[in-house]
This record gives sequence, C-alpha cells and structure tokens, in this order.
Amino acid sequence: MSYWKYPECVDHISKKLTPESSERTKIELDAQIVRKKIEETIIELGYSRYIIEVEYQGSFAKDTWLPGGLDLDLFILFKKSVNKDLLGELCREITYRAAEKLGAKVLKKYATHPYFTLVLGDGIEIDVVPAYYVRSAEEVVTPVDRTPLHTRYVKGVLEKNAKLKDEIRMFKKLLKNLKIYGAELKTQGFSGYLAEILIIHYGSLRNLLFHASLWRPWKTCIGRWKGVPQQFPLIVVDPVDSKRNVAAAVSVRSLSKLIGFALFFRFRPEILCCTLEKDGTIEVNIERIKDIINKGDYVFVQITNFPPMPEESLAGIYNRIVKKITRIAERSGFTVFRNKVIISENILLIFHLESTHLPRYTIHEGPPIWEKNSISFILKWISESEIWPFVGEERWYIVKERKTRNFIEIVDNV
Amino acid sequence: MSYWKYPECVDHISKKLTPESSERTKIELDAQIVRKKIEETIIELGYSRYIIEVEYQGSFAKDTWLPGGLDLDLFILFKKSVNKDLLGELCREITYRAAEKLGAKVLKKYATHPYFTLVLGDGIEIDVVPAYYVRSAEEVVTPVDRTPLHTRYVKGVLEKNAKLKDEIRMFKKLLKNLKIYGAELKTQGFSGYLAEILIIHYGSLRNLLFHASLWRPWKTCIGRWKGVPQQFPLIVVDPVDSKRNVAAAVSVRSLSKLIGFALFFRFRPEILCCTLEKDGTIEVNIERIKDIINKGDYVFVQITNFPPMPEESLAGIYNRIVKKITRIAERSGFTVFRNKVIISENILLIFHLESTHLPRYTIHEGPPIWEKNSISFILKWISESEIWPFVGEERWYIVKERKTRNFIEIVDNV
Repeated sequence: MSYWKYPECVDHISKKLTPESSERTKIELDAQIVRKKIEETIIELGYSRYIIEVEYQGSFAKDTWLPGGLDLDLFILFKKSVNKDLLGELCREITYRAAEKLGAKVLKKYATHPYFTLVLGDGIEIDVVPAYYVRSAEEVVTPVDRTPLHTRYVKGVLEKNAKLKDEIRMFKKLLKNLKIYGAELKTQGFSGYLAEILIIHYGSLRNLLFHASLWRPWKTCIGRWKGVPQQFPLIVVDPVDSKRNVAAAVSVRSLSKLIGFALFFRFRPEILCCTLEKDGTIEVNIERIKDIINKGDYVFVQITNFPPMPEESLAGIYNRIVKKITRIAERSGFTVFRNKVIISENILLIFHLESTHLPRYTIHEGPPIWEKNSISFILKWISESEIWPFVGEERWYIVKERKTRNFIEIVDNV
Repeated sequence: MSYWKYPECVDHISKKLTPESSERTKIELDAQIVRKKIEETIIELGYSRYIIEVEYQGSFAKDTWLPGGLDLDLFILFKKSVNKDLLGELCREITYRAAEKLGAKVLKKYATHPYFTLVLGDGIEIDVVPAYYVRSAEEVVTPVDRTPLHTRYVKGVLEKNAKLKDEIRMFKKLLKNLKIYGAELKTQGFSGYLAEILIIHYGSLRNLLFHASLWRPWKTCIGRWKGVPQQFPLIVVDPVDSKRNVAAAVSVRSLSKLIGFALFFRFRPEILCCTLEKDGTIEVNIERIKDIINKGDYVFVQITNFPPMPEESLAGIYNRIVKKITRIAERSGFTVFRNKVIISENILLIFHLESTHLPRYTIHEGPPIWEKNSISFILKWISESEIWPFVGEERWYIVKERKTRNFIEIVDNV
C-alpha cells in the first residue's frame, strides 16, 4: 500500500515543529527562576506546612509544546488537609509576593476557578495554579488535581519512547490547523492531553489517522471504559482514571472533522503536508470576503455590551443564544446554512442564511378532514385567515400571513 | 340528540329540488316523441333484427334528476350478435335519419366512445347511446352496457319507496354544491348512480351523513366486495355487480370533502341549508379576486393550442402535466400551495405558490463525513461550488447556486 506512507515533506515539517534549543534554553531558565522564587516565598510566608510541592505541569513539563504556543503552568500542590476556600487565597498571596521580587506583573484570570498569571519582564507568561496533591484519581478533589497525574503518566511513557514527542507535536499542529485543538466551549475539540494519549495509544500519527478514518461518532471507545454507561461522540479512557472520558469535550463536529481529514489522508497523503504547513493565520482579502458574503445572506450581530465574565462562560451563553435564534428562525421558515460565535474584544454572532426575508404568505397544514379537531381548526382560522381554508387531498390547509418575515426581528426578540 | 335532526329549512329546499310538473310534462312529451321517431326509423331502415330495445336510462328514467340539470340518455340496445364496430355506425345512421324527421340538429360527441346528441328546436338535448342488451353483469361487453342494469335496479327500489327520490335529489344537489358531483377526471367525485345507491343503502341523507362523518379514506367499504383485493379511497359495491366498485372514480380529496361536510353537519346542522341553497354560480367580484391573487403568488398558464380531444382526455393529460410541474417545482425548492386545471374553450393551469422566485443560493447536504463517498462528494463540489464545502455536525454541506430560481422556467421546460 504505497499510498499509505507518510509523504516526504513530513520530516522537514516535523523539524520545524520542534522548539529550537535557544528558545528552549531561555524558557527553561525563566521557568527555573520563577519556580525557585515561588518556593522561597512559600518558606518566607511560613506556608511550607500547607504545601507538598511546586511543579510545572502541562506541555512544558512533558516537552510536547509547539514553538510559539507554550503555556507554562506552575502548580502549587497543597496538602488535602488545607481548606478548599483557602487554596486560592494562599496562592494569590504567594504569587503577588513572588511577583514583587521578580519585578513581574500579575493578572487575575478565571477558568473553573480563579488563577494567576505572572508576566515577566521579557513577556513570558506563567500561570500559577493551586491544586491538591493527590497520588491517584480516587483522591482528586478539584478537576485540576488530576493534571499532575497526567503529567507524570505522559512523562513516564515519553522517557522510554522519546520519538513519540515528534508525533505528538505533529498531531497537535494538525488539530490546531483543523481548528479543533482545545477543549474549551468555543472549540469543543481535542485537548493537549487527549492528543498525547491518542498518539501514545496508536504509536504514531500515521497509525492514529489510519484508525481515525474508521471511527464513527457515538460508536468509538478507546481503552476499557469503567465509568457510568453514557453516550459520547468519542470515548478515550483516561489512563490514570478509567472512569473518566478524556474526550468528553469533543463535539460531533470536531470529531467529524478529524475523521474526514483521516479519510482524505488515506486517499491523498500529501494533504498532511499542506495542512501542517499552514501557519494558522488567515490573510484578510477584502475582495474574497465580499465575494463570500454575497453567497446567500449573512447577518452579523455585534454584542458590545456584555457582562465581564470568563470567555468560557460567555461562549456557553452565546452558543446557546445562537442555537435558540437558529431554532426559532427555522421554525419560522428561515433556512440557516450555518452559524458561529466569535469572542474577542467584542462578541460577534454570525448567521449564514438562504435569505433574511421570507415571502409574506405561508401555508399551514391542518388536521385530516375526518378528525374531530378539524372543526376547531376551521372555527379558529375561518375568522383569522384572509383566504378560506381549503381541502388538499385529505387535510385542511390555510394560507396565512407570516408573523415574522424578517430574520432581524427574531434576533431582536431573543 | 336534538342537534341530530334535519334543520327546518330542509322541507322547503326539498320542494325546490323537485322538478315542477309543467317542466316535467314538457320534457316527457319531447322524450316520448324522440323515442317513437327513433323506433320508427329503426323499422324503416330494416335494423329491427339487430336491436332489442330503445330505452331511456339515467336520472330521467329513474326520476331522480334535478331541475335545470337534466341529461336525457336514450339507449339503443343491440343484440350481442352485432359486431362491436358496427354499433356506432348503425347508431349514427339512425340518429341522423331521425333528426331529419324531427327537424333537430346532431352533435357528435366523445366519451370512452363516440355518441350523438340530438338538439331539438326548443333547445332540449338528448344523447343517443349505442349499447348491448345484457341481462346480467356477467354479459357486459362495453361499460355502458351496464347502465340499463343500474336503471332497472334503482327504478325497482324507488317504485317501492318513492320518498327516497327527495333524499337522492338533496344528496345530488349537495354533491354539486360541494363541487364533487360527477365521476369525470376534472371532478373525480360521486356519480349520479353512486349518489342513488348510497341513499338507498342508508335510507336517508341524514343517516348517510351520520355514517359518512365516520368514514376514513382507504378504510371504507360499503357492501360485500367480491372483486380483486384492491386499494380504493372508497369502495361502494355495485348492487348489480359485486366485483365492481361504483366509487372507483372518487378521489381522496372528493371523499374528504364529503366526510368534512358530514362532520360539520353533525356539529351545525344548519350548514346543510346554506350549502343546498347556493345556486352554484359564483358572483365574479374583481376586487375580491384581486385581493385573493395578492395572497402568495399565482401563476396562470393559458394553453390555447391543444389537440381536438374529448374533455376527459384533456383533463387526464393536463392533470398529469400540472402534477409533474408541481413535483419538479417542489423538488427545486418551491412551495406550491395548490393547483388546478380548468378546461373550457381554453385550458387554464393555475398554480398558487409561496413565491415564484427563490433565493439565489441553497444548501446541499452531503454524506456523513466518515463515509467513503464523502471523498467523491468533495472532489465533485470543490471545483463546482463557489463556497468551499463545510462541516456541519457530522455531514458535509455545500452552498451552491440554484439551477432554477424562477417558477416560469419549470413551466417552460415541461
């Protein structure tokens, strides 16, 4: 099966995806300094008795990060005896005190709970995250407690098989360019950890894609699931907790995109090269955009006045709003081709429609003529509709004026 | 059940539906003269050896005709030994010769086979129809041979129960005003004979309507069916031939209209009066028509150039054409509220649409992403469509330009 080889470009691309040693050295130095400062501060503040360890987690710790796309996650791992409410408070105090010494700024951020970002003088950002120190999945209290277990597991595998790092980097870059990298609501795609364990499971990107081309949404389970029987588009059992689905955030759409890519890769392996080579930025071509916007009707709704909430919460809220608008619009007779929520400084809701305006009259199907409720149907409509009810085959029909003819009215009312 | 009585108006209306004795006398006189002349002519021409009887059939013979709506059908009943091809020829000769003596005109007409209409000086028209004389349904050669059997059966019942004549007249008038009287293709409704045997079966219009309100299309059979098992919206077994469905021509729509009326009659018996009182002509109100035509889009297609065929054949052809246009239009995305064929001097096809024009772009659903044929789908559309295929949930979609945006194009191409 000659077509089933990697195309030649892959070696070349793989090299580009490995951070250069100069970049790596610089970051490792910074990371070490910050960790030391945090540890010093803990001792100074007399908090050592609460804390077991200060440790880098995530792709930096595992050496699976992509050049230019690094998140440094420094975890302060507390004893389980510390009160949950105290964790954030202690972390805040430690971070601000350490920042003073480092001459760094601190940003307060929110995910499922607040955390702090140190911004160093040279622009490098380090997230400082409080979590409990746990030895196994059974001990986990907050979701982030599990992260060190993941780091330890992946590091353990990669120490024995360092070649997998290149495969992981390629897969992450692929996911990124397919716009399905990340478990957040706006992406509903594959997390970094999920990418890692998939590569570990299949041994190579090639083998992973071969199998992914045979996946079916709702029917794929990788690993031995011991959790509650539950429906997921994709189940990938967490190696450190067989009751947890690492792919729980993956939507049918994201999964389908990967399956679709895998199918095309089998058919034309070269597609891997051009997909990996994209640098992820889109060249804005006004003419091209104008051209696209003329195909069907586009509606852009800009939200400028929204509560100061974490992006993840806003994504949840506005995804629901867009779904609701789409549902009402479709029930009213509009054809919505697709929709999208974009969250940056403002929030943008985009709807691609067959048409923003509908004809004035529509037909309304009544009950079969022989059913008792056809009497109430007629009594209702004979006064309301301008054209009399009529018999089409075996049902009553009326032609009535639409309540909503303009898509914007629906947006305004939601 | 007080609401289950006839409303009081019915007596009054029933009287109006019985031909006045002056009208009756005049017609009976004319009819007798014509029959005598035809019989004389047969003897003169030496055709007595071919012919068994000359007899009036239909509603005139049964005395179930409506004032102003009489068809006089004079049947020349031939011996079965006469060659089928000769029947029309002999009938033609007899009719023209008799017409000369009567000072009447002759019109040649077509139904399933040609027949002749005598137009008397005072405007009365008499159809002269050739048929075989048969004693039972088993002997029937051409469909009209059965008519004398029907006449004999109905006359036999009505002689014993003359009151049924009023009920039959009311039912026929009701069918007429509901526009479902007649078995021809343009109506696909209830024939006169069907109306008669339904009243005979149920004993009264009231009882018939009571039962009709419980009928269901495809699930109603009146009498013991001995024919081939077959699906009909309504089966009414012919009392003279239990293998024949007298209601074979009744469409679901016509049947539904009767059921619907029956249901409303049970709910509001007064509806019978206003329905029977309509004289069947529609006042043409230009303002009202303009108003209706503004509700949705109407398309009128006038056919001025059509072959000189019997109306029944034209109705068949143009019903099929209208159905075909509707089917193609609906497949192309148009919403056809209803349609109609009107045959008079010209042929008029009427379409009532949501809109005669569609938006330029439409969405086209592709295969699920994981299916092999999604590759060929993409290869096909990636070059043809102006917007790239996209993933919506688990399928490929493309937005493409419609081939047909104007309803008239479909009409032109059929």
